[in-house]
Amino acid sequence: MKYLLILFLSISVASSARANDGYGLWLDYSPVENSQLKQDVSQLFTGFYFFGKSPTYEIIRDELEVAGQKMLGSSPVFSTERLAQTQVWLGTRDELSQVLGLQTQAQIRELGEDGYWRGPIVFQGKTYYAIIGNRSIGVLYGVFDWLRSIQTDTFDPKTENSESPKVKLRMLNHWDNLDGTVERGYAGFSIWNWHKLPGYIDRRYIDYARANASLGINAVSLTNVNANARILTTDFMKKARVLADLFRPYGIRVFLTARFSAPIEIGGLKTADPLDPGVIDFWKKKTDEMYSFIPDFGGYLVKANSEGQPGPHEYGRDHAQGANVLADALAPHGGVVIWRAFVYSHELDEDRHKHANLEFGPLDGKFRENLIIQVKNGAIDFMPREPFHPLFGAMPKTNLGMEFQITQEYLGQATQLVYLAPMWEEVFGSKTYRPIPASRVGGIVDGTDSGQKLTLVAGVSNIGTDRNWTGHMMAQSNWYAFGRLAWNPDLSSEEIADEWVKMTFGQDPKAFAAIKEMLLESREAAVNYMMPLGLHHIMGWDHHYGPGPWVTGGRPDWTAPYYHQADSLGIGFDRTASGSDALGQYAPEIVKAWSDPTQIPEKYLLWFHHLPWDFELHSGRTLWDEIGLHYDTGVKTARKMEETWNSLESEIDPERFEHVRQLLAIQVQEAEWWRNACLLYFQTFAKRPFPAEIEQPTGDLEDYKKRSFPTAPGIKPKW
Amino acid sequence: MKYLLILFLSISVASSARANDGYGLWLDYSPVENSQLKQDVSQLFTGFYFFGKSPTYEIIRDELEVAGQKMLGSSPVFSTERLAQTQVWLGTRDELSQVLGLQTQAQIRELGEDGYWRGPIVFQGKTYYAIIGNRSIGVLYGVFDWLRSIQTDTFDPKTENSESPKVKLRMLNHWDNLDGTVERGYAGFSIWNWHKLPGYIDRRYIDYARANASLGINAVSLTNVNANARILTTDFMKKARVLADLFRPYGIRVFLTARFSAPIEIGGLKTADPLDPGVIDFWKKKTDEMYSFIPDFGGYLVKANSEGQPGPHEYGRDHAQGANVLADALAPHGGVVIWRAFVYSHELDEDRHKHANLEFGPLDGKFRENLIIQVKNGAIDFMPREPFHPLFGAMPKTNLGMEFQITQEYLGQATQLVYLAPMWEEVFGSKTYRPIPASRVGGIVDGTDSGQKLTLVAGVSNIGTDRNWTGHMMAQSNWYAFGRLAWNPDLSSEEIADEWVKMTFGQDPKAFAAIKEMLLESREAAVNYMMPLGLHHIMGWDHHYGPGPWVTGGRPDWTAPYYHQADSLGIGFDRTASGSDALGQYAPEIVKAWSDPTQIPEKYLLWFHHLPWDFELHSGRTLWDEIGLHYDTGVKTARKMEETWNSLESEIDPERFEHVRQLLAIQVQEAEWWRNACLLYFQTFAKRPFPAEIEQPTGDLEDYKKRSFPTAPGIKPKW
Repeated sequence: MKYLLILFLSISVASSARANDGYGLWLDYSPVENSQLKQDVSQLFTGFYFFGKSPTYEIIRDELEVAGQKMLGSSPVFSTERLAQTQVWLGTRDELSQVLGLQTQAQIRELGEDGYWRGPIVFQGKTYYAIIGNRSIGVLYGVFDWLRSIQTDTFDPKTENSESPKVKLRMLNHWDNLDGTVERGYAGFSIWNWHKLPGYIDRRYIDYARANASLGINAVSLTNVNANARILTTDFMKKARVLADLFRPYGIRVFLTARFSAPIEIGGLKTADPLDPGVIDFWKKKTDEMYSFIPDFGGYLVKANSEGQPGPHEYGRDHAQGANVLADALAPHGGVVIWRAFVYSHELDEDRHKHANLEFGPLDGKFRENLIIQVKNGAIDFMPREPFHPLFGAMPKTNLGMEFQITQEYLGQATQLVYLAPMWEEVFGSKTYRPIPASRVGGIVDGTDSGQKLTLVAGVSNIGTDRNWTGHMMAQSNWYAFGRLAWNPDLSSEEIADEWVKMTFGQDPKAFAAIKEMLLESREAAVNYMMPLGLHHIMGWDHHYGPGPWVTGGRPDWTAPYYHQADSLGIGFDRTASGSDALGQYAPEIVKAWSDPTQIPEKYLLWFHHLPWDFELHSGRTLWDEIGLHYDTGVKTARKMEETWNSLESEIDPERFEHVRQLLAIQVQEAEWWRNACLLYFQTFAKRPFPAEIEQPTGDLEDYKKRSFPTAPGIKPKW
Repeated sequence: MKYLLILFLSISVASSARANDGYGLWLDYSPVENSQLKQDVSQLFTGFYFFGKSPTYEIIRDELEVAGQKMLGSSPVFSTERLAQTQVWLGTRDELSQVLGLQTQAQIRELGEDGYWRGPIVFQGKTYYAIIGNRSIGVLYGVFDWLRSIQTDTFDPKTENSESPKVKLRMLNHWDNLDGTVERGYAGFSIWNWHKLPGYIDRRYIDYARANASLGINAVSLTNVNANARILTTDFMKKARVLADLFRPYGIRVFLTARFSAPIEIGGLKTADPLDPGVIDFWKKKTDEMYSFIPDFGGYLVKANSEGQPGPHEYGRDHAQGANVLADALAPHGGVVIWRAFVYSHELDEDRHKHANLEFGPLDGKFRENLIIQVKNGAIDFMPREPFHPLFGAMPKTNLGMEFQITQEYLGQATQLVYLAPMWEEVFGSKTYRPIPASRVGGIVDGTDSGQKLTLVAGVSNIGTDRNWTGHMMAQSNWYAFGRLAWNPDLSSEEIADEWVKMTFGQDPKAFAAIKEMLLESREAAVNYMMPLGLHHIMGWDHHYGPGPWVTGGRPDWTAPYYHQADSLGIGFDRTASGSDALGQYAPEIVKAWSDPTQIPEKYLLWFHHLPWDFELHSGRTLWDEIGLHYDTGVKTARKMEETWNSLESEIDPERFEHVRQLLAIQVQEAEWWRNACLLYFQTFAKRPFPAEIEQPTGDLEDYKKRSFPTAPGIKPKW
């Protein structure tokens, strides 16, 4: 240990001069090594020409300056005259209309407000490379895409590329409290310094906007859904305005969370009843005031009647009545209400899995057009693996948006490498059979199958004050993947991993292959050593750190045994018709297939079925043995990831190498802890030996139960 | 405003490649420009030779590597053989004994365990440059001093330099809570990540140790004096051990805060009575356990019977009885108790100014030898200006240490540039007339006048997770100045400013002169626009942000009127014999001079005297007019500082320039706010016009009173 410390000291201090602390994210451009590519790009960098003026073009200019320095070792040249001597043309379709053919113009017009076209253009006998959008923000997106193609060695100056996002609102949700803490934040504290705003603009705000713009993220909600009404006071509007002004040229609109009881708390009213004229007037005036400060304010994100948050039910009103009041206040300004479907309450004595559909299903068609119901990917709560949420496909007359959790509340928090794109890909690819037989979740969310025009993919941010933004630097991949998937839900997790690894670590083939493999196997590893075969909600109490299948206390649906239902006979939650019948909320095709424990995909087995310990799985093994094998496989994959990384010492800069090395060592320990604790606990019910083929769990169950983590992050400080 | 934002965007993003975020502190070596110096140093950098082996030498090697790269553009050469071809010799006196003359050896021995000698050595006809200590840590201090001499352009290879610290314990006190918040922290949150310890070593820990070692800081207390007993549990000892192991080769020992009620809270006892055998045993065993993890553990820092913290008074015991139990537990291991004198309690119905002397004075001589009473520089609480604490000189048979506050709780917090060294210099230079007529506070603290051997200068840290460590990057100067003054209380604030500015901003003469001037005038400016002429404790409630001379509520000595005593007749706190007679706690020479309002230095006037508004000051002005003039002068100096800085745009890198520019704009606003609010408030008593020569205060007093700052930093989050 002492030796290791000394070793660490000596490698780390020496590397100060060349330290890579991860702040640069995927935008810390590495030198172009492919000589043909370098020649092509260097040529283009000798003459940029902007066809118009815009704050966004200043951003592009700065980005090209940074990229030129880092990729090519020299500054780009920006021309203001002599068009014929330029190389790269930048501007909107309107600005370039004099030099574009009508067909190209039409082609670009179809790309919509956020799309871009890039490719060669011949004008007066000479070929130029052009990057064109319908708005300046499209040009910015095109430039980022072009730079990405250079960094991933896929740029061809002769090829046309055009893209437009499949989703309208590509949004980060910050669960940041006004006091600087972050609920479920594992990367330090909130990057928003409300005290120093509006006078002081932290450099981070700009770098944050830049990173989001590079992915096409165009909306951010700054504050926690467990909301504080104070954010809607005039003082805070003035602070939020500064951020909105900064983000605007990056194409990002600001949203805020609206606490449903704000009319009482800051409006001086005695009620927040959404049908009360005073309340209606409060929201209208408050919203008008907001737009006086932020003319392109995005709208409100609301968590109502869930986990103690106030809502319309207090007044005998339903979600539609509550949400529509806000929507009506926003509508004249072009704003949007995002209303969360994550609800569960004491009132309803039903499997929590069913609450959202029971509360929202009957309201289909009653919500305003400028309103989206934001639905978590699954019905419980961001588990390592969940079947898709049964609301998708069940509300054909309502705008539905997707809510993913980028912050790894249940997937290793700050200490584990878990690349989440495979999970999100799995969700988007899930067949819903509704509204049309071929429907997938992705097709509902992006409007292809649902026909909805107001579309949304939101992600709960994993960003904090840690220098590398995300705590675990490999968790930057999740911010990246979220942005890319929000832009295009059809991208594969592997394509995205390809991009991110190359942009973050350069193109060393050994490192590339190794890191990509680590990413792609990491989520299944986590499912295996945490909650395999459909197990869920068996983590530590409150802070959700580590295993806690024994956790009881509080309401039943906050405990672990409620979800795993382990007893002497077997394990699993019966959600078929013989149980809670939550399964009945899905399309008939799914009900039919998943009701049968031999037909349901085994990854969802215990989510829907309570089965005997000796139930035989497709492998021929008993359920008990298979559980053991999954846990053990998870641990072994974690160890393999650690070995893989440690083999890269000479390929990775010392600071990042050491950072990930230490965290992977912790991940292996935590994986072993999960396996040992869960298997020892379940064995008290199963009363069977562990399968011989696995490493036998070690440690003492009572010791595992006694562990306490008073400094676990992500909850509001209580001392 | 919009224009400014766009301008800021464009300058800031473009500078990414050369961004200076301030993380490098005063150790971000700039290129040596003086050509003779560069030649001398380059020559020396071609051959370093270590006469021994030590983890500390690895640190030196790394530091030289960084410094060589940054100062000279090339790596140093380290030789392992061929002594005659080397240039710089490094090692301890023992290690170099074969090559050192006896006289030099004797000279070095006298420098003590932390001293160093550097200079030319002739050996076998050739001259070498040597840096020698009595321990390896002395060599490290010598190297940092040598590098500083290069950066400040004062290095002469022909001159001998030797130094040893005048104070034994040069210590940072972190008021960091285990939940990551920092009480009175204005630079983000705690840099200690207790959750990820012991498995994960944040790079910051090393850079923190390096910065401290560069100043000679050799002790740190990691946790808040408002203590949580949990830090003394085995789990946390294992975490603290990792930090102790990391800090050891930097010469830094770890201290922890001991909560007096820990025997009850974590020991399972029913009492914390220091005379109870079970309690004595608890502290002994707990301390033994601590040393099993940290063999060079520094000891305990304790706040007892103050502001609600538990202490010996609960059991009818005095401070000596309470403190000695801890001291006895530590003594066998060489540990030290640091017991704070900052006490005030409900029990004592006296001017709070007098509490410490009343409680501690009678205990003189009753404290153990391995125990220091840590005394704040003044008797109230780190005000912008306080007379020195009357305990200094009043306890000749007790070890007394100094407690400064580096974090700017009452001096502008995170938004104001206030260089604190002039204040600390003023304190150290204050004549106490006790124990000997020539005594100064500095001479008591460093043992010269007091004869005490265990000496301490402690500073409440201003360090947090903000990338630049201290929130306001100019506040780095306070960390720096604290360390330098703790090493040598006789240094002048101007010398220290010289060093810091050159090491932080390089040697551009225009920038150097301007920044140095800003630093040196900043503290008097703050006194003037906040609390001139001896006014004190008139800041905002609880968070202490901004003016609050009207603040009432809670116990009387938490209110502002208790301290300023303004009424229709006059203003000021009568602490002479006709009042609380706190003045009587000082030496007779001081009592005599300061009892007379015409003789007392006017900077302390209202601290000790309640005087009529028309009382005539040395200037010939009335007290009322002089108060107005001081406030106004403060504002004008702040504006001048802003103008000075803004004239340096072409001399400073854009990121730091913009950072300080924004904060100075806020500082001017806050200075105006202080002046306006305080003068308008005091006018309600004085009922006199403001002097014509000042800018007339604007704004509405009621509006100033109504301002609320729910997101002011530095207090424990309450929502």
